[in-house]
Amino acid sequence: MAPLNRQQSLMQQSRQTATFDPYKLTCVLYNDEPTVKRRREAFKRVEEATGSADQSKLPAIYANTDREAIYMQGVEAGTAAFVDGIHHNHDFFYGLDQRYTLSNCTPYGLHYMMFIPTIELQGSKEQIEYWVPLAKQGKICGCYCQTELAHGTFVRGVETTATFDIDKDEFVIDSPTLTSAKFWPGAMASSCTHGVLMARLIIGHKDHGVHPFIIPLRNVDDFKPVQGVELGDLGMKMGYNGTTNGYAIFSGLRIPRNHLLMGHAKVSRDGTYVPALHDKTGYLTMLHARSTIAAGSGFKLAQAATIATRYSVVREQGSGTGDGPEMSIIDYRSQNFRLFTIIARAYAIHFTRKPLQNLEQGLKRIAANNDYSSMGLDHVLFAGYKAWNTQVAADGAEDARKSCGGHGFVLTSGLPSIVAEATAPATFEGENYVMYQQVGRYLTKCWKNLKLGKQIDARLGLIQNAFAELRSNSQPQSCKASGKDFLNPTVQLSIFKHRAFRLLNQCSSDLDSAEQNGQAPATAFNNHLMDIIAAARAYMDLLVLQDFISGVESTKTTTSDPAVYAALSRLCSLFALTTITHPQSYDAISFVEDQHLSAGQIRDIRACVNELLDQLLPDAIALTDAWDFTDASLCSAIGGYDGNVYEMLMEWTRQMPINRGMEGGGGGSCERAWREWVRPALRGEIGAKL
Amino acid sequence: MAPLNRQQSLMQQSRQTATFDPYKLTCVLYNDEPTVKRRREAFKRVEEATGSADQSKLPAIYANTDREAIYMQGVEAGTAAFVDGIHHNHDFFYGLDQRYTLSNCTPYGLHYMMFIPTIELQGSKEQIEYWVPLAKQGKICGCYCQTELAHGTFVRGVETTATFDIDKDEFVIDSPTLTSAKFWPGAMASSCTHGVLMARLIIGHKDHGVHPFIIPLRNVDDFKPVQGVELGDLGMKMGYNGTTNGYAIFSGLRIPRNHLLMGHAKVSRDGTYVPALHDKTGYLTMLHARSTIAAGSGFKLAQAATIATRYSVVREQGSGTGDGPEMSIIDYRSQNFRLFTIIARAYAIHFTRKPLQNLEQGLKRIAANNDYSSMGLDHVLFAGYKAWNTQVAADGAEDARKSCGGHGFVLTSGLPSIVAEATAPATFEGENYVMYQQVGRYLTKCWKNLKLGKQIDARLGLIQNAFAELRSNSQPQSCKASGKDFLNPTVQLSIFKHRAFRLLNQCSSDLDSAEQNGQAPATAFNNHLMDIIAAARAYMDLLVLQDFISGVESTKTTTSDPAVYAALSRLCSLFALTTITHPQSYDAISFVEDQHLSAGQIRDIRACVNELLDQLLPDAIALTDAWDFTDASLCSAIGGYDGNVYEMLMEWTRQMPINRGMEGGGGGSCERAWREWVRPALRGEIGAKL
Repeated sequence: MAPLNRQQSLMQQSRQTATFDPYKLTCVLYNDEPTVKRRREAFKRVEEATGSADQSKLPAIYANTDREAIYMQGVEAGTAAFVDGIHHNHDFFYGLDQRYTLSNCTPYGLHYMMFIPTIELQGSKEQIEYWVPLAKQGKICGCYCQTELAHGTFVRGVETTATFDIDKDEFVIDSPTLTSAKFWPGAMASSCTHGVLMARLIIGHKDHGVHPFIIPLRNVDDFKPVQGVELGDLGMKMGYNGTTNGYAIFSGLRIPRNHLLMGHAKVSRDGTYVPALHDKTGYLTMLHARSTIAAGSGFKLAQAATIATRYSVVREQGSGTGDGPEMSIIDYRSQNFRLFTIIARAYAIHFTRKPLQNLEQGLKRIAANNDYSSMGLDHVLFAGYKAWNTQVAADGAEDARKSCGGHGFVLTSGLPSIVAEATAPATFEGENYVMYQQVGRYLTKCWKNLKLGKQIDARLGLIQNAFAELRSNSQPQSCKASGKDFLNPTVQLSIFKHRAFRLLNQCSSDLDSAEQNGQAPATAFNNHLMDIIAAARAYMDLLVLQDFISGVESTKTTTSDPAVYAALSRLCSLFALTTITHPQSYDAISFVEDQHLSAGQIRDIRACVNELLDQLLPDAIALTDAWDFTDASLCSAIGGYDGNVYEMLMEWTRQMPINRGMEGGGGGSCERAWREWVRPALRGEIGAKL
Repeated sequence: MAPLNRQQSLMQQSRQTATFDPYKLTCVLYNDEPTVKRRREAFKRVEEATGSADQSKLPAIYANTDREAIYMQGVEAGTAAFVDGIHHNHDFFYGLDQRYTLSNCTPYGLHYMMFIPTIELQGSKEQIEYWVPLAKQGKICGCYCQTELAHGTFVRGVETTATFDIDKDEFVIDSPTLTSAKFWPGAMASSCTHGVLMARLIIGHKDHGVHPFIIPLRNVDDFKPVQGVELGDLGMKMGYNGTTNGYAIFSGLRIPRNHLLMGHAKVSRDGTYVPALHDKTGYLTMLHARSTIAAGSGFKLAQAATIATRYSVVREQGSGTGDGPEMSIIDYRSQNFRLFTIIARAYAIHFTRKPLQNLEQGLKRIAANNDYSSMGLDHVLFAGYKAWNTQVAADGAEDARKSCGGHGFVLTSGLPSIVAEATAPATFEGENYVMYQQVGRYLTKCWKNLKLGKQIDARLGLIQNAFAELRSNSQPQSCKASGKDFLNPTVQLSIFKHRAFRLLNQCSSDLDSAEQNGQAPATAFNNHLMDIIAAARAYMDLLVLQDFISGVESTKTTTSDPAVYAALSRLCSLFALTTITHPQSYDAISFVEDQHLSAGQIRDIRACVNELLDQLLPDAIALTDAWDFTDASLCSAIGGYDGNVYEMLMEWTRQMPINRGMEGGGGGSCERAWREWVRPALRGEIGAKL
């Protein structure tokens, strides 16, 4: 075996300082050891099938960046995962692809994420029996067509029409305006046979609002779109280019009446419309999607953290203040502060997966029992987790990328695509400010109901208690903790609670005053929107901290290793305390503006953070290794397991197609650019006009 | 003339609500009306020469995204600007290209930004006389080769060697290790004839440290690299792909002795080394580059703000809380808060251009007079402005992009590339955390000197006064303002001052205590690095606010229109107050943690912000129109001047090469992907292995 080079040695040394065995943590993160083993096998098969296992080869996504080439690579990779799941009967790639991106980045992802769930949640028994097996056996491939050129989050604004033709017992689908063109649906342009279409149901002259329909998109045999549809791709996006997000313009597409999903609302042969028992049934799919997004969004952040941490271990730069040898950049406080807060946030998102799963179970019960009483809060929690998780993932991934300096800017580092893929979910399925706005609207209503002595959802004991407490204490309570007290989860939670409910109470008072002053509720709400969003965010900060704390507690039983528990506890404390002191924390000012925490206490908190960082530093590699990312899934020249950063970077760079023949002067388009533009310019052969 | 569509009408209405004439503000932003006119002519010529003036055509950068195609487009566009500057004798495209990106995004940008300035700052008289005219007449094209595979910000770590061969009176250039490969220099791989190379000067066995050399890179005639150099491109980056950032590996490249730039250090024929009078001469170019970057970084933010603002005027979504018609999204408080804070920050960066110009003048005096006494502070100010301006630009551009929802994610919106181009400068020429670290180091030293009764740079009156004040007041002073007082710039400045110097004083005490406890200064500095960075950032917040306030005051004389002054004053107040209350402000907690501001005062500040936003809303379009961006420079389907968002988006999308023939089923690689992967998968023809 070749001796290790400098970077490989640094990596090995750093790996050896761990206080726990990362494999034990891996088994916690992916539930149990058998799952870890089956996952590893699935990844191995798919990586071998697509040729991505060989790290010495420049990955195709960095070599060929043309729109069409990227799509071809995406279809190939997506097919490998799709087929593997069917043949080996697993769902590892339903929510995330083999690179841990939300699987709507592949041509088959929305099939599992939205198409099948919509049929299951909104179809009649017969429709479910007919369509779901076809879809699950992979004989058709579906997408979800909701967003339009001018209509996004606001579903009621959808303009596409499905007009009932009673003579033929069919619906006729049309895009009545330019702005009603379907625009954005993933995989729609070129990879799907079918879609669920959200369109206004028109019978006679009556508009019954937006309903879900199953529509065919193209013929399996000849790839031709069905008659009455114009399809196209939106072109390159920041990410998710392995699939085609499409536009579709409908002109007289005809589908049978029974393609309206009739689990809730129904249309009978004579055109009689029977409305759904509840007007929010149409939102079930969106909630399911938000759940998948929220639960999956931490992995891209964890990948960014893994790459940045590994790189920071082997990257040596500067010599502190002295003239000594260069330091690994992870030893700079600013760098380890950045990295560990990112790692902590990736774990924080991980520990929201359990509560999200529980909520997800609830959705199925809703659809089955037609009992929508829990849906108000469910909707709000999905929105809240979706906004919190994706925002934290997006910001953290970008900070991780920046922490790698220049090498984080080139595609071969893997970081630019990770950032783009982490950032997209902050926008799709509901822009995050809108999500928080919905959370805030619900919370202020709850608070108002409590004031009026009305009931709120029984699951909101936290809010009820806070309300009761605020009523019984007229004087604001300042925090009594000091020094190491701040490492206590109970103290941390009480600080987060105080802040969340103070903000909520304040918003509620402001809205009440505005109303008393005769302001319209909509106007008052809009005037105070930033405060309401802040209250919503603070509430989510609190829930996530709760989830993190109980998640870590649960590892006491799921792993017998106290060292794993100890490391996670430190990470959880770091998360809590840096939510207060991180320079980029959202609205951190609201932790202190009412003097709940004094300057001295903030200093104590900062001292605790420094101490936690010193304790966590030996576990930097273990905490990121634990995610069990393969090198192929990271696809990073600077984030490989062995730390051989510079050789990889150079090896991949030399393989760039643009560098073919560069040494000899024959550099393809580089030489052409030289002959056509640069040389004539230098020779003064190009006039004032080109 | 065709009647205006819905979006065009909304735009027209919004434009008509302005309280001032944006052209008057344009003349302020670009100094004077004659300059505005000459700029407009130059942009028109270049846009016509490159065909980008015709907005109905899908821009090539969105159509062909292959590495080589993007480079070809970059060279063509860059050549047009290069030639126009020479023929029409202007420097409009020296620092920024015709799309307002820092011009190192073009193959000719570093020629002006670093190559020529290095020769001017570091060459001897003879060298300047020989090289500068060649370069300025455009007969050679140069770049700046400093960064290596393993060496970035820390220049002393550079490994490339230039060994003096006394027999031949030449230097021999080598890359002694893999990690010493030059990696990153812009335009180096394929567009330059020459470069300034930073390499260790070796004479005999003595290493004299890093010095600048002029090296040839390739032959003009046949494009071949000179002997002893391997060149290549790094492949796709997040942005700046119109140029090739390159790698270079040297093996025995020979250059004459007089290619060492000898304005400061010298080597004579017999190998005698005469060191520079000052050891920081090598940094002059970097400071110049940081100045250009800092001064130019606001434009990308302004572009993002322009697109997002225009889109927000015509995008209607949701109906507030009621069932009324849909609202323009700019009318949501959360949206106008986001947009105006971004607009305000773009203007804030603009008003730092003047102080940066003054500093820039200083650099030339340093080189001419060999008087380096001001360089310590100059260095720190460039680093501080570079970090502040680029970070604010990067964060704001991304927030603007997100504020456009889904349409901000597709390349045709123009926003993804603007974000990438705004983000890059936060990393290059010194990663921002490192920049703030340097600022913090200098400031804590100054504070220490003041404690010791020593002199500091005479330009630091602000710090001297603050120090004196803190000494005379043992009790911390809380802010006395309330209500509308917070709109007063003097009040705003006093809040920013209090925060900046409280943090600095605290850091200084912490370092002193650590030293008294026997901690090594380097360790103490590293332990407190996050606090030191926070103090540095707070100091820059203060300087920028000062610049903004005095910049706005100066418009009283540069424009006779009090309405322009009024709008800018509001924007400046909004900037000051939202630096405190914006949920994403860095370290906002430090404004309140010592109770300088109470909860009631923060509420007053929030009320002032709401009021400012209501006043600014009618000027949303005017404040962004004033930047005078052409549609071609924005290159955005959703940010065009006329507001015709949806038609443009659809028009460009339909022209995507990938959509060729899609309607009929023949969709190029889409059809190929279907036949090769999707169809076989759906038919169960793909086995467990692909």
